[in-house]
Amino acid sequence: MSERIVIVEVGPRDGLQNEKQSVDVETKVALIERLAAAGCPVVEAGAFVSPKWTPQMAASDQVMARMKRRAGASYPALVPNMKGYEGARAARADTIAVFAAASETFSQRNINCSIAESLERFRPVMEAARADGIRVRGYVSCVLGCPYEGKVPLAAVVKVAKALYDMGCYEISLGDTIGVGTAGEARAMIRAVAGEIPVAALAGHYHDTYGQALANIWASIEEGARVFDSSVSGLGGCPYAPGAAGNVATEDVAYMLAGSGFETGIDLDALVETSLWISRALGRAPGSKVARALAAKCARDDATERSAS
Amino acid sequence: MSERIVIVEVGPRDGLQNEKQSVDVETKVALIERLAAAGCPVVEAGAFVSPKWTPQMAASDQVMARMKRRAGASYPALVPNMKGYEGARAARADTIAVFAAASETFSQRNINCSIAESLERFRPVMEAARADGIRVRGYVSCVLGCPYEGKVPLAAVVKVAKALYDMGCYEISLGDTIGVGTAGEARAMIRAVAGEIPVAALAGHYHDTYGQALANIWASIEEGARVFDSSVSGLGGCPYAPGAAGNVATEDVAYMLAGSGFETGIDLDALVETSLWISRALGRAPGSKVARALAAKCARDDATERSAS
Repeated sequence: MSERIVIVEVGPRDGLQNEKQSVDVETKVALIERLAAAGCPVVEAGAFVSPKWTPQMAASDQVMARMKRRAGASYPALVPNMKGYEGARAARADTIAVFAAASETFSQRNINCSIAESLERFRPVMEAARADGIRVRGYVSCVLGCPYEGKVPLAAVVKVAKALYDMGCYEISLGDTIGVGTAGEARAMIRAVAGEIPVAALAGHYHDTYGQALANIWASIEEGARVFDSSVSGLGGCPYAPGAAGNVATEDVAYMLAGSGFETGIDLDALVETSLWISRALGRAPGSKVARALAAKCARDDATERSAS
Repeated sequence: MSERIVIVEVGPRDGLQNEKQSVDVETKVALIERLAAAGCPVVEAGAFVSPKWTPQMAASDQVMARMKRRAGASYPALVPNMKGYEGARAARADTIAVFAAASETFSQRNINCSIAESLERFRPVMEAARADGIRVRGYVSCVLGCPYEGKVPLAAVVKVAKALYDMGCYEISLGDTIGVGTAGEARAMIRAVAGEIPVAALAGHYHDTYGQALANIWASIEEGARVFDSSVSGLGGCPYAPGAAGNVATEDVAYMLAGSGFETGIDLDALVETSLWISRALGRAPGSKVARALAAKCARDDATERSAS
């Protein structure tokens, strides 16, 4: 029996939120439904944040009202505060996600408060979610580097991850927000955090800005991590390095895991079809080497077939 | 003290040989000299093969005659037979490379003979090289998959790798020619071959067609491998998947190794400069996420500086 790894598909939220081009409600609904139909067990569906700062997520209530939900699949929504929580609850989110940074400067510049203040802000959200039976996932950003501070001490990552876990988050997603980390650093980071929190409650969230994400995932698997965030077609650029890659592509992760004997429940062909479809909708090439290689292979096979017939 | 990993830079040969655009002698010489100056300890400099089949390598004798050689650096040349060997010797190659496949069909289609026949063809080359004090490196292709046969049995990989080692190759470069392998498969392959040959004599040569190369390198490092082939800017497409990536980019490998605490002797900034330079010469974007991210970062820093002054 092969071991299971959970892929958390973040394309419709973390991905589209960081794409320049905005996407209409219908396309978002179709994207979420296609991803779940391809076997993604978790599809981050929206964010209930200020439309002033994040216009791309303004219609999350409409998206979550319209989308068909598959039995057994989970559709988290990001919430920054109680107002966002009320929106997510009204939209019938089964899971919410809160977020804090491992770097003080990033916290100040990104959400305009200290790390400690951000955690305090989540306390009433956690309590309300517990009362309502809604699971809470915690994101930690800048775990392998900060665009302002550079290196981030492991102790800072462990501290904020543990605070979120102790507050009641069932899973802590450890984010290399700027994609600078390497396999050796990911290994050390997972090892340090797993010293304080059960490794089963950890997720790796590695951006591919420096092409390191898959190696970081593999190094994390070797440390016992079994949950990873990724984005179909690598949706979502890197706001800190314009023109550079952001989220690791789900296709590339799913391909690695399938080839290495892990079970993800994902149908790679259906996933690649979805990748090619959303990439066309955004007018760009898929940010996934697996999608590009398989598309090139199909085109070649078709040409061979035509020339043979 | 950090552990050393040797990067074998194959861009000027394996890379340029598979680029559509041909490159003149002067540019090749400059590329080789820049790579060695950036600290690459081994730079594959040319191939003494039939210009009918491989016109991109036709001027290898001129390239090797003109290039300045750095003390301590090594400049291998690929040779398919005794005629090629004579050319490489005349060009003062310190190392030659011979090549065989782990797949019968690939061997037949690529070099028009069986695996056994190809090994026989190398026997006089090995003997001459030994007499002349020239080291011989052995390439094995299709170690994680074949474009014609699909899966390749590990036993076939072990058999041909051991044959080359027993014939006198000091190092066996294990090539995922079509870039289909994953970390779990690379680990199993290195483990199997290291059962018969000292792991110190193995090199991983992973193409990045499916984005898996860095994870495969990391998995191989975990198995004890300490030599890896790569190509600056990811030079060299994949002839079996037009439009798809070929060799893993040296910048991405060097970045991972430096971040993970390994010593390679390579100056990443000088390497990235070389990558941007050769990419401009070929009129394409660098096939390296590290090069693209650092170029984007520099452009941003420059803009910040200009707006601040």
